[in-house]
Amino acid sequence: MPAPATPVLDLSASSVDLTRALCDIPSVSGDERTITDAIEAALAASDHLELTRDGDALVARTDLGRDRRAVIAGHVDTVPINGNVPTRFETIDGREYLWGRGTVDMKSGVAVQLKLAAELVAPAVDVTWIWYDHEEVGEELNGLGRLARERPDLLRGDFAILGEPTRADVEGGCNGNMRVEVRARGLRAHAARAWVGRNAIHAAAPILDALAAYEPREVEVDGLVYREGLNAVGISGGVAGNVIPDECMVHVNHRFAPSRTGDEAEAHLREVFAGFEVTVVDRADGARPGLTSDVAREFVAAVGGDPRPKYGWTDVARFSALGVPAVNYGPGDPLKAHADDERVALDEIVSCERGLRAWLLGG
Amino acid sequence: MPAPATPVLDLSASSVDLTRALCDIPSVSGDERTITDAIEAALAASDHLELTRDGDALVARTDLGRDRRAVIAGHVDTVPINGNVPTRFETIDGREYLWGRGTVDMKSGVAVQLKLAAELVAPAVDVTWIWYDHEEVGEELNGLGRLARERPDLLRGDFAILGEPTRADVEGGCNGNMRVEVRARGLRAHAARAWVGRNAIHAAAPILDALAAYEPREVEVDGLVYREGLNAVGISGGVAGNVIPDECMVHVNHRFAPSRTGDEAEAHLREVFAGFEVTVVDRADGARPGLTSDVAREFVAAVGGDPRPKYGWTDVARFSALGVPAVNYGPGDPLKAHADDERVALDEIVSCERGLRAWLLGG
Repeated sequence: MPAPATPVLDLSASSVDLTRALCDIPSVSGDERTITDAIEAALAASDHLELTRDGDALVARTDLGRDRRAVIAGHVDTVPINGNVPTRFETIDGREYLWGRGTVDMKSGVAVQLKLAAELVAPAVDVTWIWYDHEEVGEELNGLGRLARERPDLLRGDFAILGEPTRADVEGGCNGNMRVEVRARGLRAHAARAWVGRNAIHAAAPILDALAAYEPREVEVDGLVYREGLNAVGISGGVAGNVIPDECMVHVNHRFAPSRTGDEAEAHLREVFAGFEVTVVDRADGARPGLTSDVAREFVAAVGGDPRPKYGWTDVARFSALGVPAVNYGPGDPLKAHADDERVALDEIVSCERGLRAWLLGG
Repeated sequence: MPAPATPVLDLSASSVDLTRALCDIPSVSGDERTITDAIEAALAASDHLELTRDGDALVARTDLGRDRRAVIAGHVDTVPINGNVPTRFETIDGREYLWGRGTVDMKSGVAVQLKLAAELVAPAVDVTWIWYDHEEVGEELNGLGRLARERPDLLRGDFAILGEPTRADVEGGCNGNMRVEVRARGLRAHAARAWVGRNAIHAAAPILDALAAYEPREVEVDGLVYREGLNAVGISGGVAGNVIPDECMVHVNHRFAPSRTGDEAEAHLREVFAGFEVTVVDRADGARPGLTSDVAREFVAAVGGDPRPKYGWTDVARFSALGVPAVNYGPGDPLKAHADDERVALDEIVSCERGLRAWLLGG
């Protein structure tokens, strides 16, 4: 029995209504217990699913003895609310939307998954459904990462689908993501006698020149073209208004195609910034598109449309690292994720539900 | 009568001992009342001086009807103490020093002035002695600036000597000082889709290139060669590790020869940084050397040595702005001002006392 405070989710409602119900349960990262309790309670009666709770992640598996197993996952947390709850319906230029925090990232995707998890008692492939916590915060807290470390058996499968927003298209894999600090050094002196010192900010000029001149590659990987990027995302330096600074740090973000390993990307950055101190502060390998297997091709055929590359890093890379090909597929425009006017087009929710159901029914 | 808590200063002590006594009265900017009370009390018995208290500044004037009047000034505040009180004597490579906060900047200069103010009841020129507050903090609080605004009559004279540290040499005038913010603008975007935005940090590359390539002038003014400077003293930009930044600000300090006005210097910077937003945040005109008048030449002859230019901006510019030629002359190495190992060579204190006495006695 759910505790009295646990909201009741009706999984037979439409995926749009279910999206709304999920959004109206606040679940900013770190505060996922209530929503995961609600999901667990709603699935408790589904005898075709074996439930495993791990912290505020919930895994629900079918065990039908199918040849192949799909892993279908989504996170239940959101970035902080900024005046954008409760949800409301809006019509813009004749298209209907559900507006509010979480509608895009990614409770509409979770709603589609939940509805189908309950409804499809005998899918054509075995399915491991995963709803997890802490996606919007630090790497070390990520619920899918925790499962990958502690229960990698639960992530095993032939193919994985992550419900991150893709406007209901299939977006394969993801770019790798790396952040480095590039430093120029100098020697402090009073600004009235600058010639006694060496100005570290002036010494950083070649770093900015290299960034401004850099031409990012476009790299085809398994038929999809990934666009790379190299960008300063921060710069700092300076001691006081009358002091020649002895350090200037340029914080650089690099997005690299999934055909390149993190080691290769790091070596590339050390070449671009030769002569400067380069410190890696964050590094996540990308994921290849995951579209070369039979099961992936069948999925794409069932949901329709042309697969595109995913530019942003997503948790598909965790599956990729375990040898499970993975794609992103979910309702919502990723440019509206985290936005104050976050809103999902209702037709994209319906489209994802239709696509996923078609594939799971063996279509 | 001094309040019971007012320390007693013995103005007949040696200028070295008097320096030590002054340093051992804490007087970080904003906390000058005690030291000014002590100075006022010590001079109360000097009938040849007319005292005027203004806040924590004290003006002491002779009125002997001399043809010429000298203004001799020094500030009584210090930058914050950093474990460097109480003072102690040190011998380094056979030279004796007084170590501690304020020994260089500038209680040794004040000690020499105080001793001579009390001792010389009939100097060859009329003298206006000024000891003032708040030199080490914001322009708007500066005690000499306050007097210049509210009691300009008290600053009037034919020649001014500021006791800032010069290693007991005469340093003429000072460079002008200006700070500007130079900004590059861009357009925010998610770092995974950098091509949607415009990176403001990359756009700032030409600002750093211009600074790195800049060759500062050396400019002769009234026989002294001033060395200019143009330096980034700070840089900032960035929103978050995954966002293309929309602004980058370079904080630039410019030191310009006193032959150039602030307007001319500003026009020069707008030319150097053409194409970027330039905002002046601080601006102080320099001061010409002040060595062309008869009284200045007599002063230099009396104290000996070759005058040099002052690179750093000092309050001599306030006299210069009032039409009073002014020089810097005081014990201590300016490179040790504000340093944790601030210390003054005792021979420089004695040398300044001797030089100033010689000139004031008509030598």
